[in-house]
Amino acid sequence: MNYSIGIDIGGTNTVVGLVDADGLVVKKEKLKTKDFVSADDYLKSVTAKIELLADSVKEEHIILGVGIGAPNGNFYHGTIEYAPNLPFNGIIELKDILETLLLRDGYNLKVTVTNDANAAAIGEMIYGKAKNVKNFVMITLGTGVGSGIVVDGKLVYGHTGFAGEVGHTIIDIDGRQCNCGRKGCVERYASATGIVITIKQMLNESTEQSLLRAINEDEITSKDIYEAALKGDSLALKCFDYTAKMLALGIANACEITSPEKVYLFGGLSKSGDILLNPLKKYLNEFLFSVFQNTIEVELSGLKEEDAAILGAAALCY
Amino acid sequence: MNYSIGIDIGGTNTVVGLVDADGLVVKKEKLKTKDFVSADDYLKSVTAKIELLADSVKEEHIILGVGIGAPNGNFYHGTIEYAPNLPFNGIIELKDILETLLLRDGYNLKVTVTNDANAAAIGEMIYGKAKNVKNFVMITLGTGVGSGIVVDGKLVYGHTGFAGEVGHTIIDIDGRQCNCGRKGCVERYASATGIVITIKQMLNESTEQSLLRAINEDEITSKDIYEAALKGDSLALKCFDYTAKMLALGIANACEITSPEKVYLFGGLSKSGDILLNPLKKYLNEFLFSVFQNTIEVELSGLKEEDAAILGAAALCY
Repeated sequence: MNYSIGIDIGGTNTVVGLVDADGLVVKKEKLKTKDFVSADDYLKSVTAKIELLADSVKEEHIILGVGIGAPNGNFYHGTIEYAPNLPFNGIIELKDILETLLLRDGYNLKVTVTNDANAAAIGEMIYGKAKNVKNFVMITLGTGVGSGIVVDGKLVYGHTGFAGEVGHTIIDIDGRQCNCGRKGCVERYASATGIVITIKQMLNESTEQSLLRAINEDEITSKDIYEAALKGDSLALKCFDYTAKMLALGIANACEITSPEKVYLFGGLSKSGDILLNPLKKYLNEFLFSVFQNTIEVELSGLKEEDAAILGAAALCY
Repeated sequence: MNYSIGIDIGGTNTVVGLVDADGLVVKKEKLKTKDFVSADDYLKSVTAKIELLADSVKEEHIILGVGIGAPNGNFYHGTIEYAPNLPFNGIIELKDILETLLLRDGYNLKVTVTNDANAAAIGEMIYGKAKNVKNFVMITLGTGVGSGIVVDGKLVYGHTGFAGEVGHTIIDIDGRQCNCGRKGCVERYASATGIVITIKQMLNESTEQSLLRAINEDEITSKDIYEAALKGDSLALKCFDYTAKMLALGIANACEITSPEKVYLFGGLSKSGDILLNPLKKYLNEFLFSVFQNTIEVELSGLKEEDAAILGAAALCY
């Protein structure tokens, strides 16, 4: 059987996984990313974990390579470039350094790098629901909003290698200030962060009763809003409706560009299920140009949340 | 030498052109589209023109095929679908009917159909400035705003065949009412129609002197605004600045999705040159997410205006 190694680099943890051809994560190794100050030391530890997993595969099996999903990961350069949430600054030559370290130890493995959302899109193609879907958009709803765009069966990297930033398309020219320095980006509305900003505004701008008024305003999380909405809390439901509307606008604009067959949602907020999906589908159809109406299905990702990042990274080896 | 036949179908005229491999339009034949009530009669006349041009090519030369750029042209189906500005309603099976008529007369020619803006993008790749550009966006600024998106050297058709509608991405959720039924589409701001709406608003909302006040408000054209701007008319320049800003927002959002190396502008408004280009470049860089800033060049199309539609259509044969 063919195996591949998928690595999910996050600001807190790094998980190195051994994945079989059916998308089963056979073994996992963890590192605390934030415990390292030097990228060199970090990559030496990552290399040790890769070699540990590679050694566990019996000789008749083949390891296809190493795939890495990382914040600001660049597919063309094999680098991480100026990732704000990692302890390492500047440009890290991830691919070159890891391949050299591995080769020195006798492991001839190709390393492929991309960002988390692109990795998730490829994971969906190889192991998830998008096996026979040629044109789709993957949206990851976490602290921010990431996306991966697939056209004609291939992930779109574009000229820079950074294509697919639906989260940073602008839907309100005078809108909320984004961390990226611009205003009105989708991610300021449709992420776990965005929905919390919305509920705070709603709580302050109305006197409507809400279960959420029992929580200290600075401690409200997207999960609290979801739980209140589940109980029928009217303000929480309005908050989801607005979140869905803004997300729908961003997705609609992306769909006008690439005309996908499917949009898959993944990550924290997508676990809200129909509370988010139902208004999202309604608004998406309203915002779509007529030729695209009723041509696009919105679904939850087919990847298991806890393994998705590893699977996406491992899928880069295919 | 290889020749191809390019057909530009417009609401008023249809032009059938014979194009050589260097992109020279060797011969042209015209028909008045609007003189026909039946699509069948129209397509018989188009067939006769194709055959006339094919017969003019000497035997040692090869005709590669027939390419057609048409409003609402669908590449996958070879059809025109519900084009509002043509005298023929519903779905016209352009490819099937023409190929059958041609074959009956002994001409075995493949017919390829797409919309005008997609044809322009392919024309730019085959005959224009984009010969070695793998990722670009073509924007056509006419009565509306069309676009063709090229990713990795291939035009993006998407699931429906209608991908690439930058003109109908929404940049202001509460914005101007568009003919398409939605609000705030790029084309309501950045087309020849859009810029006229803007100048009327500006004339009504301010008392600022302007050369344009000498023209009956209902007769102002985009060309008048351009000529006033050329003379340094402050209101006309503000109007171009606003138009450029709204266009830049639409283009920036498209660039976040596909990360092109170039954006080419084509059609009526693009002839305004630097009056449009300078503010457009400035705003585009402001609206782009940091990783894309200074990675995208905006240029005028390399296709000659009068032949571009024919060239784009002819390029479909490659």
